[in-house]
Amino acid sequence: MQIGFIGLGNLGTPIAENLLQQHKQLLVYNRTASKAQPLIDKGATICSSVKELAEKCDIVFSMVSDDAALNHITKSEDGLAANLKAGAVHISMSTILPATATYLGALHHLHRNHYIAAPVMGRPEAARAKKLNFLISGNAAIIEIIKPFLRDAGAAGIWEFGMETEAANTAKLCSNFLIISAIESMAEGINLAKKSGIDATQWINMLTQTLFNAPVYINYSNFLLKEAFQPAAFSLKLGLKDVNLVNEQAAETNTEMPIGKLLQQRLNECVAKGYGEFDWTAIALALK
Amino acid sequence: MQIGFIGLGNLGTPIAENLLQQHKQLLVYNRTASKAQPLIDKGATICSSVKELAEKCDIVFSMVSDDAALNHITKSEDGLAANLKAGAVHISMSTILPATATYLGALHHLHRNHYIAAPVMGRPEAARAKKLNFLISGNAAIIEIIKPFLRDAGAAGIWEFGMETEAANTAKLCSNFLIISAIESMAEGINLAKKSGIDATQWINMLTQTLFNAPVYINYSNFLLKEAFQPAAFSLKLGLKDVNLVNEQAAETNTEMPIGKLLQQRLNECVAKGYGEFDWTAIALALK
Repeated sequence: MQIGFIGLGNLGTPIAENLLQQHKQLLVYNRTASKAQPLIDKGATICSSVKELAEKCDIVFSMVSDDAALNHITKSEDGLAANLKAGAVHISMSTILPATATYLGALHHLHRNHYIAAPVMGRPEAARAKKLNFLISGNAAIIEIIKPFLRDAGAAGIWEFGMETEAANTAKLCSNFLIISAIESMAEGINLAKKSGIDATQWINMLTQTLFNAPVYINYSNFLLKEAFQPAAFSLKLGLKDVNLVNEQAAETNTEMPIGKLLQQRLNECVAKGYGEFDWTAIALALK
Repeated sequence: MQIGFIGLGNLGTPIAENLLQQHKQLLVYNRTASKAQPLIDKGATICSSVKELAEKCDIVFSMVSDDAALNHITKSEDGLAANLKAGAVHISMSTILPATATYLGALHHLHRNHYIAAPVMGRPEAARAKKLNFLISGNAAIIEIIKPFLRDAGAAGIWEFGMETEAANTAKLCSNFLIISAIESMAEGINLAKKSGIDATQWINMLTQTLFNAPVYINYSNFLLKEAFQPAAFSLKLGLKDVNLVNEQAAETNTEMPIGKLLQQRLNECVAKGYGEFDWTAIALALK
């Protein structure tokens, strides 16, 4: 089986490194070729185009920044759908609009190859520790085949959302919404605690040992209390992109999401203030 | 040591029952005397007034519905501050404005007795299971003395926030804010999942086994997914009272809380629609 990887960003790189470690070789492609250097140094082979990579691979993982980038590498004449062999699989890990996944799934089907939605939960350090959670949907037989490769990529958990191509993307958007909601709520609570004169760390410690003893509260409260907004593990700009997708999906499905709208406003304010490249916990900086 | 208990509501009753069980006898008072009957049947003795109870007790627990009720039983000529013996202790478990606690603490001090802020986290079933968490603040020596009584009352955890009378009340408001924020976020996420055609239960199950594996998400998602808004374990009306206090505290400390404001609007809408006596998870009913 020849494996390929497209998209060597913050999270893509450690996932590709996991695959390279397991399979000893890996074909890679990145729009900015220089970003592939760390992987080439470790033994990966760079391809000059998506087309070249697609023609050579049985399984291609992609982790690109947004719907437009994914459409670009998938839909064009030189893209994955038109150039993967019949029966080959595109494992798409990006967080995108469900409708984009539906469309790309159909396009791959037309070309007799496969598209599997496999958005991933976890920051880069979780990828390195092989503690990622993959949400997946698509053809059940293909999913069975690719599961061992997801484990090679760093999956601790694989969560199946059924046959509808886009189901995992919906679940991913809902999850990211819940994470950034929790971050904003914590930021507001920490602010109130501090301004009221109590020890916010003591308050958070109590909660994360009782009602809120979950990784999302334990990890993110740590960044918020330390105001450690740089370097970004997940940039605020990408967080805004995801929240925009949440609101777009809400509009398409006629779903009222008042907190969703509020988060969009706050993140837009933060980008306007120049915090786009900070970690998305920097949403706290919009609070007075 | 003679123990007394004022305020036999939803949560007060099981806490009083725990104390009665440990101490074999208990003096009780409730504005609506009929609500004391279950405890009298189990061996408690009813007092005809707060004054009568205060004069007889060394330690009085109170759990009343709001700041006004607490002021009423504490400040008046026939109230706790003026009628407790010198050195006696008022353990105040209500969720109130920190400024109210500061004032009542000073008033008790003036009367040479003690006020300890001990707001409690936990629903009635947690009280019955003795799995409550008490947040406490006030005189450190008095706190050491009353700790065993908090355990008798059903404490699994006792979390100290220092000598400032009102510190535990601040921590409690911040905590309740975080809980109702999580409920509203879950409600919005579940709605988006459902309207997008995925199995919301499957989505929540994934989250509560990974990033969000905390009681607050596990317990409340269960109510939200089942839309089990009655009977109320904690009424929406009381939730609104707490969120009003959060916003009042935010205003007093010049703290911006956009989600705090949003929650206040949503809960007010729910009360206007007649959901005040539903569980506070019924905030979901404001979503279209």
